[in-house]
Amino acid sequence: MTKLVAVALLLTIVCHGCTAEQGAPASSGGGAPKMILIIGDGMDQHQITIARNYLVGYEGRLTLDTLPERSSVQTQTLAEEDPRVPEYVPDSANTATSMATGIITSAGRIGTTAGTDHDAVSIMELAAAAGFGTGIVTTSSVTDATPASFVAHINQRLCESPRAMVTRNPTNPAFSTDCSQDLRANGGKGSIAEQIAASNVDVVLGGGARNFDQPAEGETATTVSDLAAANGFRLVRTPAELAALAPGGKVLGLFSPGTLGVQWRGAGDAKAEEVAHVDGRVVYPEAFGCEPNPEFDTMPTVEAMARAALTQLDDGGSFLLMIESASIDKQSHLRRPCGQIGELKQLDDTVKMVLEYARSHPETLVLVTADHSQAAQLIPETSVLAALNAASPGHFARVRTLEGAVMGINYATNDSSQEDHSGADVPLFAYGPGAEEIPAQIRQADIFGIMLRHLGLTPPTSSSAP
Amino acid sequence: MTKLVAVALLLTIVCHGCTAEQGAPASSGGGAPKMILIIGDGMDQHQITIARNYLVGYEGRLTLDTLPERSSVQTQTLAEEDPRVPEYVPDSANTATSMATGIITSAGRIGTTAGTDHDAVSIMELAAAAGFGTGIVTTSSVTDATPASFVAHINQRLCESPRAMVTRNPTNPAFSTDCSQDLRANGGKGSIAEQIAASNVDVVLGGGARNFDQPAEGETATTVSDLAAANGFRLVRTPAELAALAPGGKVLGLFSPGTLGVQWRGAGDAKAEEVAHVDGRVVYPEAFGCEPNPEFDTMPTVEAMARAALTQLDDGGSFLLMIESASIDKQSHLRRPCGQIGELKQLDDTVKMVLEYARSHPETLVLVTADHSQAAQLIPETSVLAALNAASPGHFARVRTLEGAVMGINYATNDSSQEDHSGADVPLFAYGPGAEEIPAQIRQADIFGIMLRHLGLTPPTSSSAP
Repeated sequence: MTKLVAVALLLTIVCHGCTAEQGAPASSGGGAPKMILIIGDGMDQHQITIARNYLVGYEGRLTLDTLPERSSVQTQTLAEEDPRVPEYVPDSANTATSMATGIITSAGRIGTTAGTDHDAVSIMELAAAAGFGTGIVTTSSVTDATPASFVAHINQRLCESPRAMVTRNPTNPAFSTDCSQDLRANGGKGSIAEQIAASNVDVVLGGGARNFDQPAEGETATTVSDLAAANGFRLVRTPAELAALAPGGKVLGLFSPGTLGVQWRGAGDAKAEEVAHVDGRVVYPEAFGCEPNPEFDTMPTVEAMARAALTQLDDGGSFLLMIESASIDKQSHLRRPCGQIGELKQLDDTVKMVLEYARSHPETLVLVTADHSQAAQLIPETSVLAALNAASPGHFARVRTLEGAVMGINYATNDSSQEDHSGADVPLFAYGPGAEEIPAQIRQADIFGIMLRHLGLTPPTSSSAP
Repeated sequence: MTKLVAVALLLTIVCHGCTAEQGAPASSGGGAPKMILIIGDGMDQHQITIARNYLVGYEGRLTLDTLPERSSVQTQTLAEEDPRVPEYVPDSANTATSMATGIITSAGRIGTTAGTDHDAVSIMELAAAAGFGTGIVTTSSVTDATPASFVAHINQRLCESPRAMVTRNPTNPAFSTDCSQDLRANGGKGSIAEQIAASNVDVVLGGGARNFDQPAEGETATTVSDLAAANGFRLVRTPAELAALAPGGKVLGLFSPGTLGVQWRGAGDAKAEEVAHVDGRVVYPEAFGCEPNPEFDTMPTVEAMARAALTQLDDGGSFLLMIESASIDKQSHLRRPCGQIGELKQLDDTVKMVLEYARSHPETLVLVTADHSQAAQLIPETSVLAALNAASPGHFARVRTLEGAVMGINYATNDSSQEDHSGADVPLFAYGPGAEEIPAQIRQADIFGIMLRHLGLTPPTSSSAP
């Protein structure tokens, strides 16, 4: 839908966690304020501890561990059927919508309100309207829930492409789609891919080419990529093309048909499995280490994409850049601990590079956070009750670390093909002007307010679009 | 063992997380510095989010949420067999030992070093030696791992009483004990109860009477309680006796044979159960709310014990008070979500009272933390894949909240009678002088250094006892 919600009003509702001092504009170090938001999808405290143990050992420190300020973020989700009632476990659509727009909405929604389906203006739209640079980097499809929430407005996250707008999934009706009210034929903005193609975001880098390499709604020959090109996007498809790109002008980089391949996998493609029972005795799985994933070969790293985006955006003016390492979450859904660890490493490497940028550009506020918590738990590699034949239910992996010990990692939210999310608060790390003003406990929608204030942007006071 | 480790040396090893500024003595607001450490056993981020949702609803805030400073604490554990190698999931003994003494040790050890079994001097011993008031409050047996680590030195946590010093558990050898080197007959300090009875801690309040109501080692008529009384402890056994106690002099309050009864339970004693399958279809368990636990009737609240301890200790001088809500952990082991929530409520109520004290005594530093993370996970009450007949493995509860929604809570670390701990970093909340100097990420042993500096205590520079 296109009716925009008055965000100023909502801000007064959602900013319980902010101190009075936070209301003041942040010092931006003298230059034009720059905002970099880094999201580790599903990067909760278990994922961070697991990755630290593997990547740097129990005596080591991640770059994440060195950020000077830290807060904890409560996620909030409303029931679509009755938005007065909460749900306690979010998805990446409603959480990214909270960060991008400052509203609380229902699972699966992209930049729209629960129940009433009004569009909520996003920080990226406000930044673009103010003439600031804007960028999105993700290892997911650029049409996936997290990046989409910063650009698009649609009632269902799965409406990523023209073909996906109205679909039926007879096996699991929850995965069917009906975004008919947003079809362009019905006066809507079209699919997420079409909304990205029509957007004024300067830099969009990630996966999801298949959602752009298909006819736009109502067209036979014109693809969504064609629409993007007509709207001024330079289209790149390989890391080499990305690296060769001159600064200036819009860019849409799509490096994979869907999600980008991940950097690491378990040795021999090992992942968590159900624990075996042989002759009534529990047989714990063999421990494994991590190895490079051959499918990653043609992918750009998150750091390379983030660096390219900074090269495009760093013109002395203000900008907003959202960077997502998406497959921490996706690999946890698939019970692949090495995949998770490698994608957290990608995020940590990127944080390091971004901090170097921020140190030489002191008007830069860097926030690093997760959108929601995930299934994987760090548990004993051998239960305290192992002598009683105790074993992990669900799926279990034993990962051998570089310091010669073994981590037990459990996935047990449900017994089907994929794990569910979990609902714990997630961490927020901060560096830069105003970082020390962020309260110790906030709500996810407060992140919108923090970014808005740092950039000196004014929320819309009416229902008009920016 | 009795040989004391030089903690000054160890401090230089474990304080990687501390900033340079942290080395300076904290401002204590002008008066004699007071230190209150509140430990929620097993109180990780899932437990806090679950409790918030139930106790104050998704729009509400716990007292915990209002503390001005927050850090994240990495737990560290060494293997007993080879202390050069880490383990990734701790227990309450080695974690409390890290906080109490600044060393890293192996699971199950109380104030002693991994492998070598040397005693490490505790902050409470240093405080007592400096003439400061000292106090311990817990809902567990006062001989249990967390309180014990602040007073005692022994190689196994289960050696709580004279009778428990050497025992054999044929079913699970991990639960056998051999503390023969610490028998008084062998020149040791005896069981944990005997070490508490012989200690100069001023206030000890909690459970565990059965460990004191038995003959001391080598005695037939003299109980451990008799030893405590001979050492100057006034003995109290009921909340009424506690409330009537005049300030001044030592007190040992034991309000239960073992762990204190918990405040809440599931309605009709409901807890998490394995999900049923009927005719091949999953049947999700009925949702339940929480109700008062009848067994709690004769127990003092944590807040009442903490208030009594403050009444005893508040004489204008410095003191160190450790307060533990122990059964957040124990109820999670037993898959009882309402038990966990009620015990977190007890902690939160106590934090509120302690903050009131600290506001009127600005020389008070309050730290609130957990010792380790636990099994319970907040997951969807209905899986996203429920249409595919997906259900939680392990044990699952659906808890109805006061705002009319349902939380799914999962326990799936192993399939035996009790859950294991988990290994994620835990939160630290801080209020008072120096709180804002605590780095965003620390290690658990750093808590010892923070308390030491706030109290202005000097670690021993030799191997001598304080």
